[in-house]
Order: sequence, then structure tokens, then C-alpha cells
Amino acid sequence: MSSKLEEISGGTCAPKGFRCSGVSCGIKDPESDKLDLALIYSKYPTVGAAVFTQNEVAAAPVQLSSNYIKTTEPQAIIANSGNANACTGVIGTEHARRMAVLASRALGIKQRAVQVCSTGIIGVPLPIERIESKIPELVEGLEKDGGTAAEAIMTSDTKPKSYSVKLTINGEAIRIGAIAKGAGMINPHMATMLCFVTTDAAISKAEIVAATQDAVSASFNRISVDGDMSTNDTVVVMANHRAGNRPITRAGKGSKEFREALSHVMLNLAKKIVADGERVTKLVEVQVRGAASLIDAQRVARAVANSKLVKCSWNGNDPNWGRVIHAVGYSGARVKEQLIDIFFGGVAATRGGLATDTPLQDLVDVVKEREFTVGIDLNLGKGSYNIYTADLSPEYVEFNREEYALNRMKK
Amino acid sequence: MSSKLEEISGGTCAPKGFRCSGVSCGIKDPESDKLDLALIYSKYPTVGAAVFTQNEVAAAPVQLSSNYIKTTEPQAIIANSGNANACTGVIGTEHARRMAVLASRALGIKQRAVQVCSTGIIGVPLPIERIESKIPELVEGLEKDGGTAAEAIMTSDTKPKSYSVKLTINGEAIRIGAIAKGAGMINPHMATMLCFVTTDAAISKAEIVAATQDAVSASFNRISVDGDMSTNDTVVVMANHRAGNRPITRAGKGSKEFREALSHVMLNLAKKIVADGERVTKLVEVQVRGAASLIDAQRVARAVANSKLVKCSWNGNDPNWGRVIHAVGYSGARVKEQLIDIFFGGVAATRGGLATDTPLQDLVDVVKEREFTVGIDLNLGKGSYNIYTADLSPEYVEFNREEYALNRMKK
Repeated sequence: MSSKLEEISGGTCAPKGFRCSGVSCGIKDPESDKLDLALIYSKYPTVGAAVFTQNEVAAAPVQLSSNYIKTTEPQAIIANSGNANACTGVIGTEHARRMAVLASRALGIKQRAVQVCSTGIIGVPLPIERIESKIPELVEGLEKDGGTAAEAIMTSDTKPKSYSVKLTINGEAIRIGAIAKGAGMINPHMATMLCFVTTDAAISKAEIVAATQDAVSASFNRISVDGDMSTNDTVVVMANHRAGNRPITRAGKGSKEFREALSHVMLNLAKKIVADGERVTKLVEVQVRGAASLIDAQRVARAVANSKLVKCSWNGNDPNWGRVIHAVGYSGARVKEQLIDIFFGGVAATRGGLATDTPLQDLVDVVKEREFTVGIDLNLGKGSYNIYTADLSPEYVEFNREEYALNRMKK
Repeated sequence: MSSKLEEISGGTCAPKGFRCSGVSCGIKDPESDKLDLALIYSKYPTVGAAVFTQNEVAAAPVQLSSNYIKTTEPQAIIANSGNANACTGVIGTEHARRMAVLASRALGIKQRAVQVCSTGIIGVPLPIERIESKIPELVEGLEKDGGTAAEAIMTSDTKPKSYSVKLTINGEAIRIGAIAKGAGMINPHMATMLCFVTTDAAISKAEIVAATQDAVSASFNRISVDGDMSTNDTVVVMANHRAGNRPITRAGKGSKEFREALSHVMLNLAKKIVADGERVTKLVEVQVRGAASLIDAQRVARAVANSKLVKCSWNGNDPNWGRVIHAVGYSGARVKEQLIDIFFGGVAATRGGLATDTPLQDLVDVVKEREFTVGIDLNLGKGSYNIYTADLSPEYVEFNREEYALNRMKK
């Protein structure tokens, strides 16, 4: 079977039969015209899948959307930024439902076919009337080139994030498009992270669900910026069959290629999210191998990726393997100190738990790059895992300690 | 039974029959006369107990000392700062043993009666010859007023830490004295933290072991500065029976009072360690109650105490309960959002998962203090736990990203 994957433009509008839009309704700031409400819509029937935050305190829209998708295929996604509609009690549930009602009426689809997402501040009631008044404009604005949707879901992101590809399998082309937002509070098992994916592939329900799980495990569950985990994280995937390809079924022909392409799309956005994390200056891939088990490899990767001291050292261009081996030691994984190898960008800093004679400057040259890998080989077994993370900068703390957080709460 | 506890001066020299000293041997800096080698010694036989780091990568002196104390009562502690003798392989083990040999010969006691501790940089061989040349001066300097020992174990601490009390039970006085060092990498289950405790109490071996475990659980295992865990943490307690009190036995008369006093001493130093953490501006007690179990209460306390976003908010005087409830949600504990109450200094910020109408200024007034409590009631059960932690400041990151870390590695 021959297949080809190439990047194309268009984000969630790249696949056939999808339309997107974004408008400003003054949730972020009543005085500005910042975009803060997005809509993604398939004119045609779909099959879909979604993955939600594992935080026990889940926002109202997460509870609603996860409930809806159990019974009904998602044909539209409405998402606002500026307010998370989390910790808002009964009225929050009412507001989330109202968003679904408004979108479904305007689009002429079932209420339960609308996925609802919110991101932003916590504990403040959503200004639902502002959303309501902008629904006509939002729906009228639906277009094939709806690049504004990616902008409308941003919070502290510095730039909109979108990516799309064309996958050709045995001469049949399908398209996958996606937009995402991230910034702070990014931790494995989802974060204040939204990702919406569209595809025009003809694909079975079972396959889109399995492929989505796979792709999230390989991408969004492998990123970490600050070790916190949000109440609102959501990935929604919609497939509308418009490509006319021979349908892809679970473990059938084209399944492997489709899954790889979907993972590739999500990983592209996951890395963009880390690199655009709040006041981040470096994108670091922590690669663990030789662990006694997969679980142990994950423990080590997460301990290293979340260590404040390790992250600070990267910010200072410091190939500080002592802090890395510390984190390996307290990770909870089985380790033998005298077997641990640590690499920066493939250059060995320690072998068998001891410093190598690699010139320090060689290691510094790796760590001062904007992107590099930290490799850890426990030399115990076959467990391996990798995670994408970032440094910790003084500016991150400045940003997150700012009185602006306080000011926002006052609104 | 009547008992009285009062603070006295003298640190580890306060109890009868103990002598201490501190000298400079140029481990921290060959060009300065900073103290970096300490000795604590009982002229009389002792019973003792020790608790060590749970980091799988344990430094050479930790491995040595934990081995020695299994067979032999500790009669002396030798400790250097400036170099952790961790990740130093076979030569590290040799150096740790050499420190025990040198101290035991100079003091005329068994080699295995010496507890050896090191703290400082990792992965660099200990300059053992500098220690060797200063042993005579170290032993000659032993005195009743050896306040310099507390200074000689400091690393990035800004001040020496010591505390001592007199406990009077039914008219019989015993003394407990202690010194400690902390600063960075402070996490429950020990940190780059050393604490040496002396007491002249007559006490059984079983009781001193049990009392030490209790006191560490109630103090050093409840502090967290940056969530990292060191390779070198050690608490050593030595009791030399010189007070002439009626011996305290396990669960016997005076046991309760002694354990409370020992916990009190360790908690005093634990709090000093947090408050003197690297670039810390606030000491925060996180109090969890109403959890379904003790384990769940610990999970919630640790998730909140280690959340970077929560710590940043404290640094900005921001009573941001949204970030607290976030951390509660991802802690892994069973929680019901609609039952969660959150308090700052006893003032309710949320009830039943929703914001109260407490004026924001009232909450800000709490969080802008140098010390305050954050209370979390899950309203599910009887599990409770508390933990002492600190804010996260831009200066912490500046400090830990500094090229000085790199410079130190070059030595």
C-alpha cells in the first residue's frame, strides 16, 4: 500500500464540507474587539470522538459535552475564550446548555450534536447574554476560510495554532485539519488545552474513536509546561466522509496510515502548545529508555519534565545532570544509580551514574539551543517513553504572580 | 503527671555531655574561610536513631551511615557542606568511609559509631585531603558552646538554624537540642536537608527510634519548597542518658511528653527551613480536612503545596481559589466539587465549590501576610493532613537558573 502525507493550509477548514468562524462578543474584554467565540460546523453528517480532562473538578461544558457525545455524533463545536465556565454551579450548567441550544437552533441541528467548550478564568459566571447576541453574526460568518476560529479560542497564547495535512492512500486523498490553544497549565492528561480536529475521511465510528485515543496518548498526554492540570481540556474530532475514500475501518486498510497522520497532526499542535507556553524559551524532549516497565519510564519522564530545579537549569543553559539524576531517583521508578546514562542532545553527560569526560562546553552547546533532547537510559529493561516539556523562566513566575490575576477576579 | 516545655539556648550543645565544633577546610571555596565541616560528639555512650532520604539515588554517606547505624549506636556526627559526595561512584564510597575513619581515630571511638553526612554539589569528587588536614583542628575545637556547627552545615541557607528546649517531667529535667540546614530542594520525604538532634534523656533504644519516626512524620515529611527531593537528606538523633531522669521506655511514663517535645523541636526547624527556602517570601500552611482517607488528604495537601500556579499566586498576594480547586481536582483524591470549601486564614473563599460573597479585600489581607494558612475541607470524611510550604518567586528561578550552577560544575 502506498501512502503520502503532505502539509496543506486551511486548519479545520481544509477538509471538505467544514466551515468555521470567529467573532468578538466582549467576554475577554468588553472594551476591545478581541475574538472570543468560535464555531466549527460540518454541513454533512459525521462520526466523532472526544477526550476530556481527567481533573475531578470538570467545568460545566466538559460535563455537558462528554454527556452529549455518548448518544449523538458531533456536527458542530462552539467554543468561547476568556471565561472557563468552571466552578460556576447550577448556573454554569445552564449556561453551557444554553450555548448548545443557541448554536443548534441557528444551525438547524440537534442540540446534542453541539460540543460546547470554554476556556479562561474560573469561578465567574459566563456572560451568556453577550454570547447570545452574537450567535447570528457567528453563524453568518461561517466560511471555508475561517482562520479566525483559531484566534477566537486563544487565551494567553501568543499566536493562533493550526495545522492541516493531506493524506493520500493508494491514490485516494483525505484531509485532516486542526486548531488548538494552550499556554499555561499544560500537563500530561490534558491541560488548559483545546484541540478541534476535522477530517473529510470516510471512517467508521469505532476507528475514529480508537484513532483519537491513540493520537491523544501520543501527543497531548505527553506534554508538560507547568505540571498543573486544567478543568476544561477537550479534544474533539469530527469526520464527515466527504473525501469519498474507501471507508477506513478498525484495523482495516488505511487504518495504520490514518492513525499515524492523526497522531502527526496532534503532535504538531502539542509541540506548538509547549513552545508557546507562558514565558517559555525552550522546547525539550525528555526521552526515557531502558526502564523496567512502561509505567516506570513514564514516572521518570514526568519527574524530570516537572522538576522545577531541572527546568530552571535549562533556562540558564546549564546541562545540570545532577538535578536530572535527582529527579530520576525520586520518580518512584526502579533504578540502579550505577547503570544510569544521561544524554543532552545525544551527547553522554553520565555513563553508569558517573560524569563522563565530555567537555562541559559540548553539553552547554546543546542546552543553549531553543530545542533539544534529554535522554535517560536506565539500562534495566525495555520500557520507554518520551515527553515534551519546557524550561521555567523568571518571566513565567512574573506573569503568573501578576496582580492582573487578581484584577481579573474582580470583574 | 506534670510537664513543662521551655525554650533554652545552645542548639546541639544544650544537652549535657555533648560537644560541637565547626571549621573551614575550603570545600565551599578554597579562597574563603567559610565554615564547611562540622562535628557533634557525645563523650558518653548513646542510643540513637536516624532517618534517611527515600531517593533511590542516595549519596555515598547516606548509604554508609544507614548501614553503620544498623549495628552500632552513633556517638558522633561528621558533616561537610559544599559537596554532596553524590553520584561519585566507588571513590565516593571510599571518601565517606575515610571521613568515618578519620573522625573515629581522632575521637577514640568505633568507626561505625560515626554518622557521616555531606551536602552540596553533586557529581564532583569530595576533596578528602582538605577534610583530612583539618580533622585535628575540628576535634580540638570541640566545645560546649559550639554554635559554629550550625553554620558549617549551611549551603544556600541565609542563616544558621538551631533550636533547643528543656522538658521537665515530674520535676526531672531533660534537654533536647538540634541544628538543621535546608534551603532548596525541600519536599516531603526529606530534602537537601540535614538535622542533627542531641538529647541527654535517659531513654530506651526502642523509644528513641519510635519517637524519631513520629517526629520526622510530623515535621520534615510535611514541608515542601520546590517539590524536588534530594539524595542526601538525613536526620540523626543521639541520646546519652546524662540527665539522670527515670528512663523513658516505649509507651512508658514520659513517652508522650518526650515525643511531643521532639516533634516540637523538629517542627520548629522544619518551619525555619521552609521560611528560609531559596528566595521564599511566604510560609504557608496547607490544612486539609474532610477527606475520604488520610491518603486522600495527603494527596490534596501535596498537590496544592506543589502547584507552581498556586505558589505564583501567593507570591502575588492573590487569594486565587480557582487555582487551588484546580489542584484539588487533579490530586488523585476522591472529591466532589459541590462540597469543597476553601479558606484563606480561616476566611471562606468558597463554600460548596462556589465563590462566597466575602469581600475580595478580606482575602487579600490574609494572603499578603508573611505567614498564613490555606484551609481545604472536602466534606467527605475524616481524613486530615497539613503541610508547610512556600510561595514561588521570580527570584527563586533567577537563583536556580544562574550560571553560577554551571560555574560550580566546572570546579
